[in-house]
Amino acid sequence: MASPSHTPPPDHGGADSVETRSPELRKDPVTNRWVIFSPARAKRPTDFKSKSPENPNPKKPSSCPFCIGREHECAPEIFRVPPDDDDDPNWKIRVIENLYPALSRNLETQSTDTNRSNLNRSIVGFGFHDVVIEAPLHSIQLSDVDPVGIGDVMIAYRKRIEQIAQHDSINYIQVFKNHGASAGASMSHSHSQIMALPVVPPTVSSRLDGTKDYFEETGKCCLCEAKAKHFVIDESSHFVSVAPYASTYPFEVWIVPKYHSSHFHHLDDVKAVDLGGLLKLVLQKIAKQLNDPPYNYMIHTSPLKVTESQLPYTHWFLQIVPQLSGVGGFEMGTGCYINPVFPEDVTKVLREVSLA
Amino acid sequence: MASPSHTPPPDHGGADSVETRSPELRKDPVTNRWVIFSPARAKRPTDFKSKSPENPNPKKPSSCPFCIGREHECAPEIFRVPPDDDDDPNWKIRVIENLYPALSRNLETQSTDTNRSNLNRSIVGFGFHDVVIEAPLHSIQLSDVDPVGIGDVMIAYRKRIEQIAQHDSINYIQVFKNHGASAGASMSHSHSQIMALPVVPPTVSSRLDGTKDYFEETGKCCLCEAKAKHFVIDESSHFVSVAPYASTYPFEVWIVPKYHSSHFHHLDDVKAVDLGGLLKLVLQKIAKQLNDPPYNYMIHTSPLKVTESQLPYTHWFLQIVPQLSGVGGFEMGTGCYINPVFPEDVTKVLREVSLA
Repeated sequence: MASPSHTPPPDHGGADSVETRSPELRKDPVTNRWVIFSPARAKRPTDFKSKSPENPNPKKPSSCPFCIGREHECAPEIFRVPPDDDDDPNWKIRVIENLYPALSRNLETQSTDTNRSNLNRSIVGFGFHDVVIEAPLHSIQLSDVDPVGIGDVMIAYRKRIEQIAQHDSINYIQVFKNHGASAGASMSHSHSQIMALPVVPPTVSSRLDGTKDYFEETGKCCLCEAKAKHFVIDESSHFVSVAPYASTYPFEVWIVPKYHSSHFHHLDDVKAVDLGGLLKLVLQKIAKQLNDPPYNYMIHTSPLKVTESQLPYTHWFLQIVPQLSGVGGFEMGTGCYINPVFPEDVTKVLREVSLA
Repeated sequence: MASPSHTPPPDHGGADSVETRSPELRKDPVTNRWVIFSPARAKRPTDFKSKSPENPNPKKPSSCPFCIGREHECAPEIFRVPPDDDDDPNWKIRVIENLYPALSRNLETQSTDTNRSNLNRSIVGFGFHDVVIEAPLHSIQLSDVDPVGIGDVMIAYRKRIEQIAQHDSINYIQVFKNHGASAGASMSHSHSQIMALPVVPPTVSSRLDGTKDYFEETGKCCLCEAKAKHFVIDESSHFVSVAPYASTYPFEVWIVPKYHSSHFHHLDDVKAVDLGGLLKLVLQKIAKQLNDPPYNYMIHTSPLKVTESQLPYTHWFLQIVPQLSGVGGFEMGTGCYINPVFPEDVTKVLREVSLA
């Protein structure tokens, strides 16, 4: 396991230890994996703070190709969202190709060449890897943008997903954001990424298995029950933010649609703005409570080709993870995670954060 | 995805890009997950270096409770390995309890209270979490120890596993080592950890599923075929070190027994010393080639209660992972990893490292 900055030395053998609450293992059908809640390793929930806060207004580097006016230094643009003022010749959001794509958009014709040998399998690396520049100015972070503007980012994701979904070889599309260097961001200019894969990734298969089991047992979609089964922090007209029952990471938050929906890209414009408002609230609360930590968010949607029978139990959501701890040999070896904070306590803390 | 220190900015959109080799997705039955090999994101394999090297001879902090003479500051000792010289009253290796255990050894009677509600499952957090102090002196790192001494560490693991295996509620035992702060180590004194779990973790279930499929298809154990199917770096009498075909991480190495063996703790003393020699060689080569990077190793063994039918395809191995890159939203979201170096190239580089 890792040595989170907020915990006592986890592999230490000295000094006093006060065990206040027994450890507990929890699993839920969505993640389908055990998490070890280990409160003896934590300080009080309100003591969690990032030791490497992100500067909310980073000084603009001398050469940021994501900044307005430097568009010519970027890989090709796919589309842009125009500014609200029609007279402004510039842009509000740009979707561009990643200059160092992990997958190549030029390999489609070969993409069915699956080589399945006895031991090893390989597929040519066809796919898309795009970047969404969320604001023209370097000083603006996503949580600074108003709900309508964050809604526009969600709509840009939707539009790009709809385009990529035309490619029959693509089976899953992962939208994610890395905020801060230790969350994996190499560029400080606010942006997110869209990666389209020829395979259905393991977390998705595992999630479908888990939510199917739940549906067969109860007749219900387990994400439709988020309000009842997890720990509610806030809600908007169409979404709820919760600390999940078996949170993998400390202060992890999910935003779950209150209506049943299999795919993120079915989101309409009204709901996109509503989502923008709740996402802004969660990001602001996390930044305030945890000292502006690096964070990731991931949109967990369904494979593009879900079958009719899967529809009753596939339900998208957005996961937000502040980066407060690292990963060590235990997590790499087992795939189990150790979380020092119960979500019951996270909910209490995040409900009460004052943004005034 | 993360922004490994060695790669071009992965989510960057500017400047020149030279794609030298096509990306490829690979999967093997042991990890049972897809890895994206993405050479366009890498420099030459020989350019990989750690940017945060560990000091091989860290200055002894004023108060390290793992150092000889400070045993009273530690949590209780479980056993010690005496020094080679019988007249020396001190110790060579100590196995102690972790002062901040992630699981509690005092909850065994409750350990069958599995609460399986409709949505959520929980188990009380019974288990063991021990520390193996690998040397009495702060200045000694594991790779400094001679093959016999590393063999003794392996035998200490074996002995502690045999003790813990007496507890019927324990289903899996994970041995791991975190070397260096960014690999999760909070103490610089050389040590490893043993964690005993009431559940079989997800990577283990997935590995058994994958190796079973392979066995059913071919009639062979896929790890017995390591020499033929992966990329051999070195070998000893009983073990081989390989760069695995679908390596999850750059410069990942596996040490695999050349004989079929389901459980690490069946290792005899002769093979322990042989393993010690090969492990020392791998650690020295990685330190030399990659600028003494932080690293993790994990022993992947079989659940304590494997069935007779599983024995033909369960085969333990040791995985070594230098920490050269981080994890971002892509990996967290999908469970897929992006590796910028093909194992073919890793093998070439590590074969040729001169330790003279």
